[in-house]
Amino acid sequence: MSDASRETGTILDPRWDDRGLVQTVTTDAATGEVLMVAHMNATALAATLATGEAHYWSRSRQEIWHKGATSGNTQAVVELRIDCDQDALWLRVTPAGPACHTGERSCFYRAIAGDGSLARD
Amino acid sequence: MSDASRETGTILDPRWDDRGLVQTVTTDAATGEVLMVAHMNATALAATLATGEAHYWSRSRQEIWHKGATSGNTQAVVELRIDCDQDALWLRVTPAGPACHTGERSCFYRAIAGDGSLARD
Repeated sequence: MSDASRETGTILDPRWDDRGLVQTVTTDAATGEVLMVAHMNATALAATLATGEAHYWSRSRQEIWHKGATSGNTQAVVELRIDCDQDALWLRVTPAGPACHTGERSCFYRAIAGDGSLARD
Repeated sequence: MSDASRETGTILDPRWDDRGLVQTVTTDAATGEVLMVAHMNATALAATLATGEAHYWSRSRQEIWHKGATSGNTQAVVELRIDCDQDALWLRVTPAGPACHTGERSCFYRAIAGDGSLARD
């Protein structure tokens, strides 16, 4: 598919990177908060669309990661969007619990302050 | 820095990938809309913090990219956040114009429909 038709067309044709992945941003559909950033491969994307629950590709474990399969903190898909050149996904979800393995609601629990230090809010 | 102190500490110590980059999600601070996904290197991050305007690393042009420097569509930094393992940034901005090179407000102007096709809203 040409770059132009990938940008303007209605055909889903993700531009997988050299590892077969696209970046995925997951937000809380109700609040807009960015919960986490992860990756999907073709199998994870298909499983997410088929089941209505977020599936990712775990780069550390090198396996499909059904979010919440063990913790119960699943993410119900509200909407899945794709960017202009189809190399990034935006997944809007209703989370059943914390997104972060630390127990925080979002992985982005710290802001960078003016002096460059990190602060929780 | 250990993985544990990177997650719990107050010291900014990004986990740069093998290209010296971290993923960056940029949202509209007023609406929560995801505008774009890009990358920063250490220079782009420092310039963003120093100037209060979004700077990225352009992987296609292999150069620092001061967003809006030519188009006028700058992004004023409202807040910069970092995730648990410090390999992703969340940049909340007030955009002066469209984020996308197509002229769309956000690069994520298409949703993936139930049948797998793409639809603009």
